[in-house]
Amino acid sequence: MSFVNVRERIEFRPEKLNKVSLFDVPELFLDVYCLEPGQAQQPHVHANNAKIYYVLDGEGTFVVGTEERALGPGNAVLAPAGEPHGVRNATEQRLTLLVTMAPNPNSKG
Amino acid sequence: MSFVNVRERIEFRPEKLNKVSLFDVPELFLDVYCLEPGQAQQPHVHANNAKIYYVLDGEGTFVVGTEERALGPGNAVLAPAGEPHGVRNATEQRLTLLVTMAPNPNSKG
Repeated sequence: MSFVNVRERIEFRPEKLNKVSLFDVPELFLDVYCLEPGQAQQPHVHANNAKIYYVLDGEGTFVVGTEERALGPGNAVLAPAGEPHGVRNATEQRLTLLVTMAPNPNSKG
Repeated sequence: MSFVNVRERIEFRPEKLNKVSLFDVPELFLDVYCLEPGQAQQPHVHANNAKIYYVLDGEGTFVVGTEERALGPGNAVLAPAGEPHGVRNATEQRLTLLVTMAPNPNSKG
């Protein structure tokens, strides 16, 4: 499946951040992350994988290394391999993010 | 530089499709492609790299393998490694796309 309407795949979960898989090949994945107010992806590190977040709707508070930024729609964030990174929804509105990671750590390929 | 406002980087060129580099690491790149009406990226193949397009504004006519689709904002397109792919702006409006490719074929790393 090579074509996807991202907005049709957005789905939130009350218990935690929901990661919806859109594309999944060995070289990279594309997910949409759906965060209710207060939900977060805790800071963590991937030694050999780079990640990019792109804000679709809402405002995310991003940490990369020692930097923190609150960013709205149309902003992109790079977490280079080896850099601690995370994101939280510190607002009262829902947050949706496109997220890509390369290479794909989930790949069986 | 880990943070970028994509819309501030959009810039069109009258002579051809403009590819604006946003992030560039060995694992992947992120560009914004800016296509005036009639401009195109001709179908081509990368044997070892996967590409994803995401439509920000306008409508792109995408080809992946033998499939062709005209897609508007919020749609994503995967071109798996080894699959011919391309995009053209067949409309009268400007087209902007987020484009990521992994691994990064331009990397010196």
